[in-house]
Amino acid sequence: MADERRKAEFDVDSMKIVWAGSKHVFDVVDRMSKLVAADPVFRKDDRTMLSRKDLFTSSLKKSAHAFKRMNELNLTYEEATELRFFVDEPTYTDLHWGMFVPAIKGQGTDEQQEKWLPLAQKMQIIGCYAQTELGHGSNVQGLETTATFDSKTDEFVLHSPTLTSSKWWPGGLGKVSTHAVVYARLLTDGQDHGVHGFIVQLRSLEDHLPLPGITVGDIGTKFGNGAYNTMDNGVLRFDHVRIPRNQMLMRVLQVSREGKCTYSDVPRQLIYGTMVYVRQKIVKDASNALSRAVTIATRYSCVRRQFGSQNGGPETQVIDYKTQQNRLFPLLASAYAFRFVAEWLHWLYGDVTDRLKVNDFSTLQEAHACTAGLKSLTTSATADAIEECRKLCGGHGYLCSSGLPELFAVYIPGCTYEGDNVVLLLQVARYLVKMVSQLGSGIQPVGTTAYMGRAEQLMQCHSDVKKAEDWLNPSAILEAFEARAIRMAVSTARSLGKFSNPEEGFAELSADLAEVAVAHCQLIVVSKFINKLKQEIHGNGVKQQLILLYNIYALSLLHKHRGEFLATSSITAKQASLATTQLRNLFSQVRPNAVALVDSFNYTDHYLGSVLGRYDGNVYPKLYEAAWKDPLNDSVVPDGYVEYIKPLLQNNLHLSRL
Amino acid sequence: MADERRKAEFDVDSMKIVWAGSKHVFDVVDRMSKLVAADPVFRKDDRTMLSRKDLFTSSLKKSAHAFKRMNELNLTYEEATELRFFVDEPTYTDLHWGMFVPAIKGQGTDEQQEKWLPLAQKMQIIGCYAQTELGHGSNVQGLETTATFDSKTDEFVLHSPTLTSSKWWPGGLGKVSTHAVVYARLLTDGQDHGVHGFIVQLRSLEDHLPLPGITVGDIGTKFGNGAYNTMDNGVLRFDHVRIPRNQMLMRVLQVSREGKCTYSDVPRQLIYGTMVYVRQKIVKDASNALSRAVTIATRYSCVRRQFGSQNGGPETQVIDYKTQQNRLFPLLASAYAFRFVAEWLHWLYGDVTDRLKVNDFSTLQEAHACTAGLKSLTTSATADAIEECRKLCGGHGYLCSSGLPELFAVYIPGCTYEGDNVVLLLQVARYLVKMVSQLGSGIQPVGTTAYMGRAEQLMQCHSDVKKAEDWLNPSAILEAFEARAIRMAVSTARSLGKFSNPEEGFAELSADLAEVAVAHCQLIVVSKFINKLKQEIHGNGVKQQLILLYNIYALSLLHKHRGEFLATSSITAKQASLATTQLRNLFSQVRPNAVALVDSFNYTDHYLGSVLGRYDGNVYPKLYEAAWKDPLNDSVVPDGYVEYIKPLLQNNLHLSRL
Repeated sequence: MADERRKAEFDVDSMKIVWAGSKHVFDVVDRMSKLVAADPVFRKDDRTMLSRKDLFTSSLKKSAHAFKRMNELNLTYEEATELRFFVDEPTYTDLHWGMFVPAIKGQGTDEQQEKWLPLAQKMQIIGCYAQTELGHGSNVQGLETTATFDSKTDEFVLHSPTLTSSKWWPGGLGKVSTHAVVYARLLTDGQDHGVHGFIVQLRSLEDHLPLPGITVGDIGTKFGNGAYNTMDNGVLRFDHVRIPRNQMLMRVLQVSREGKCTYSDVPRQLIYGTMVYVRQKIVKDASNALSRAVTIATRYSCVRRQFGSQNGGPETQVIDYKTQQNRLFPLLASAYAFRFVAEWLHWLYGDVTDRLKVNDFSTLQEAHACTAGLKSLTTSATADAIEECRKLCGGHGYLCSSGLPELFAVYIPGCTYEGDNVVLLLQVARYLVKMVSQLGSGIQPVGTTAYMGRAEQLMQCHSDVKKAEDWLNPSAILEAFEARAIRMAVSTARSLGKFSNPEEGFAELSADLAEVAVAHCQLIVVSKFINKLKQEIHGNGVKQQLILLYNIYALSLLHKHRGEFLATSSITAKQASLATTQLRNLFSQVRPNAVALVDSFNYTDHYLGSVLGRYDGNVYPKLYEAAWKDPLNDSVVPDGYVEYIKPLLQNNLHLSRL
Repeated sequence: MADERRKAEFDVDSMKIVWAGSKHVFDVVDRMSKLVAADPVFRKDDRTMLSRKDLFTSSLKKSAHAFKRMNELNLTYEEATELRFFVDEPTYTDLHWGMFVPAIKGQGTDEQQEKWLPLAQKMQIIGCYAQTELGHGSNVQGLETTATFDSKTDEFVLHSPTLTSSKWWPGGLGKVSTHAVVYARLLTDGQDHGVHGFIVQLRSLEDHLPLPGITVGDIGTKFGNGAYNTMDNGVLRFDHVRIPRNQMLMRVLQVSREGKCTYSDVPRQLIYGTMVYVRQKIVKDASNALSRAVTIATRYSCVRRQFGSQNGGPETQVIDYKTQQNRLFPLLASAYAFRFVAEWLHWLYGDVTDRLKVNDFSTLQEAHACTAGLKSLTTSATADAIEECRKLCGGHGYLCSSGLPELFAVYIPGCTYEGDNVVLLLQVARYLVKMVSQLGSGIQPVGTTAYMGRAEQLMQCHSDVKKAEDWLNPSAILEAFEARAIRMAVSTARSLGKFSNPEEGFAELSADLAEVAVAHCQLIVVSKFINKLKQEIHGNGVKQQLILLYNIYALSLLHKHRGEFLATSSITAKQASLATTQLRNLFSQVRPNAVALVDSFNYTDHYLGSVLGRYDGNVYPKLYEAAWKDPLNDSVVPDGYVEYIKPLLQNNLHLSRL
């Protein structure tokens, strides 16, 4: 590995700052990740071998310990968040801090916030977010749980009228939470007022037993070893459970003592601001998960050798095979691409928030569409990429000690929660089709759809790429991506126009529409990467590496989707072929920098959690060592030998009690 | 579900026979699957919740029970094989029957077979196949374990000279096998004679303890809950372990009492026959795994409803969404496509075997290339498809009770073992490039490469598709696939020609070469599906359904890879767009038959192992029921409450011993 690191042509420490976003963030992240790595309570190398119960108990211990350390060290909010991140284990506190507290902040009145937030912040109550039901996920408006106002007692009665109305999936609900924000249909005066949030106590603060009328438990084992099984995703049923009226979150809609509903003047668009926040965080998490997988695959590809031995010398490092580079380097480039688009989304969230404060909703729709699309694009790509990295590690990637199976299993729910990825793409497509329909109307497309304002030109343009190097010109790439995106959007909008019933057309063409949305979102990532390169970037050789990665990202997408570029005549077959040639050239340039580019993520071996991805490259001795720790090696002769192996070998099976 | 079944437009019982291959096979499979499903020992619904040790012991029990039942019922070899298949749990007997016994049969002398086979067949010894090492997988010639002949004692000395020479991965090795066929470098007279197989006893038949000089154990937990963790993949090290000379498998190469090596006249090509056998079985397994995942996703897509409720009526079945159909139906079609290509490969294996008997090696290379390529194509597609089916089941697909997480985890090693899928594609590409270089030389391409004999015409042809329905003409599709395959091969061969060093060119262009191989293999699957349709097919409406599935398979591939079809000018952008239109039309035709088409696989609920895929569609009550069986629900208040939750809630953490 030292050899590999010597090859680097740029300053790794500077790249670490670029990746972190700033020197300040780097310092916090570096300090917190090392603090976690050094603390034996946060050990996780045995996690994939624990039974569900032991795993869960050990997770409770880590959560309590983390909270204790935060208090002892008097950590800032930023530091505490990073500490929890590096503990790297899904747990009930994720929902408590990430959903329960924000829900009260966003949807509670000032009074409600004053009452509940201090309790939550000291963790004197533990809360979760109970929205999805057994029969209802994406369609929130279809939820069946009811909250009926009883004006006699000034209470809401929460009830689960059907089996499919059982709350199902909320994290932290199954075994830990004492409270929940429960989403239910508000019924008052015999009228259904839609879905609203209610603070409901679930368990006694004395003995943790469920309160009367409440059935609650864990929904069972989930995909993977360790992974999300540290979390108590739960099921919850109500049998006419009563709560005081003031436990409905009433910032937007108030129910009076008489059961009358009144909307406040708080803009309902606020909810979109929260969605932008949550989804920009998911995009950043995608860059974390992807960069982690890529680190493991890159380092191991340097350690692993196979074939190509000459005159008895060592075999070839697998990272030197073009097939390996062709699969691995676009993922490395994607990690950086997703990082920078996440950075931009973070800015966008700030911008949206500032505008909301002054009741400026002009960019909200576009911001919402673009975060929805990028959430879908980056999480789908990351899930696939983690599995690809696992395959790039050959057979050993299948061992839990490689870290990749758990990383995959723990990551993939991100494709489903906070908006199913296909449903989100269709939302984006709907927005794009609307933009297309407004072309020429004088309404100017804003933000990431601004390029649609140049539709006329983009529908006509011809790429002037003549030789492979011409593809290194950012404007050549940008134009090709813009042309492809707008042409697909316009062509699908035209097809839609042939349907007399637009909704029927939308349903019929939904597969095309999803492709339109993907093309648009890829364009956003490409253009934000270009913008990043226009910023001042410090450090020897750092910018050159980023340019290289940008080109790999864009050209590998172009290669992968060349069917769309060709079908829309955005480029010619010859130009597509030149792009592929250029891409292969770039692989050779990134090769000597590969290890340094993953070192720049600054991950501790603890966080990576992978024998294959170790910083020191000492893979084989540690793989060998890890094997012996498996429970199956507790004894030389396995349990069951006497009952099930010996009688077989001695042909005595017919005598055994099977 | 009854409604769904009523919609079917064909005779399901007849389709079951088509899927099975014959009435006889259907009867055996049906009987064995029901026998396993009815036997409580073979229960597997708790498998994903067991600890590694309990899981392994329960697997030992099932293996012993299966062997006992085979004897009690006096099952034929065919029946016994199906019974083991439906037990549906990777276990040491897979290697014993599938690798150890065949290795002795294929590589042992008549004497050796006489001595060892009866012991193995009665399971008085249990064997495994110890080839791969910690540092050596794909490159068998790079193995480091040595077997040095000691002429003084007439013995071989087996030794592991380095850490990386440790045997690593062999199934059944870790805890169960008493014997192994070990692959090691034969050293005699100070000369290295390459890698050969040796029968080595590992454990005492008295007490199961490892013999002197042998270190053996399990290599640790693997990806997924249950899944391959029922198997004791093992590590094995030799410290100068001695075995008699007659335990080297000497059918091909003999070592004399003096240590002299002599090759027998047994053709060495025999080994390719074995590889054809193993890989055709893997292709059939791909169709099994894929059809199983598709069954779960299809049935659940009919049960699940989301959005689209009109006037308070039920929501829309998710299978009616075009985005769902667009992802699911090509997978359904692939299951059938892979089934029929497996059927053909089975025939091919017979043909190759017959030819080998009369020393006819003329088709061997082609048969080897085509099985290698189809193994790679079908296993990669199936692994991706299982995960896609899981995503098609939304959030609930992430629960182990859906069956899909385990199916994915247990299936994916198939992409790596018996030839890494990328390495295999490059072997195919090498063969194709050779065929291209021989064009015009008078040597006629045979078998699946026969179309290359029409290269001149295929390089020129223009598809005459003018309207969407023209794509329903099998010859239109076949020609487009042939044109794409040959044009990619020829173009890449030309690029190769520009390199002065051909091996360097091959390395440099390997990513393109892999694409060439995929295009060729997809053509094989398409053309074998067409051949199947030319056979007599019984049953009302059955053939029509198969034609529909064939068209969906071919057109969805064409859509997915349209970049290659367009870049090679095999079709025009307009024709590509017509193909997509036609494909979407076909989805509507298959929709009413979807459930019947998966019913035709004739899977028991036991084999499916999925709450979501149940035959009766009774999903929600059973999901709810399954949740409560999780170990975490053993107690209402979880373990760890007193230590880690209560002190938190009472703000006493600082007093706790964490």
